[in-house]
Amino acid sequence: MILEVADIRVLAGKEAEFEQAILRGLEQVISKAAGAKSWKVQKGIESPNRFLLMIEWETLEHHTVGFRQSPAFQEWRGIVGPFFAEPPVVEHFQVLG
Amino acid sequence: MILEVADIRVLAGKEAEFEQAILRGLEQVISKAAGAKSWKVQKGIESPNRFLLMIEWETLEHHTVGFRQSPAFQEWRGIVGPFFAEPPVVEHFQVLG
Repeated sequence: MILEVADIRVLAGKEAEFEQAILRGLEQVISKAAGAKSWKVQKGIESPNRFLLMIEWETLEHHTVGFRQSPAFQEWRGIVGPFFAEPPVVEHFQVLG
Repeated sequence: MILEVADIRVLAGKEAEFEQAILRGLEQVISKAAGAKSWKVQKGIESPNRFLLMIEWETLEHHTVGFRQSPAFQEWRGIVGPFFAEPPVVEHFQVLG
């Protein structure tokens, strides 16, 4: 299992709209993506326009190839992309221990 | 419940030693801290010297006051601090939805 962590900064004042959009995107797009096992959005306390999207994928390739090269990725970006203040920083992780 | 996320960069070549140290620190210090409910370390795939330490605290103050102002914090930093390439970026989050 691989954890995708996307560090997202949202346009000032657009946080509430983004929250609705990302929850809709998870339901509408991510929940149907092959290899997506679980997902969670964490909202920043010190930085209220910072969100960490965490998705557990079965393998790295389920995300980087299967999802990103599918039409679903464009649908996803269409839903959440308009709220990004800058391109999100996305990396992948493996649990230690 | 509050999620602490510490974004840690480890000195090049010290990753394996750090992995042992942080697992020991979690067992020896964090597992005994009041209000610490669960913890996980995620190791970077694209950035092998990047680690995300995630700790769920009962409240924000359990971390920022109870833990950071206790001698346990010095013990923890003594175990993991020597491997830091730079000061970790630490923020707190709340799950959305």
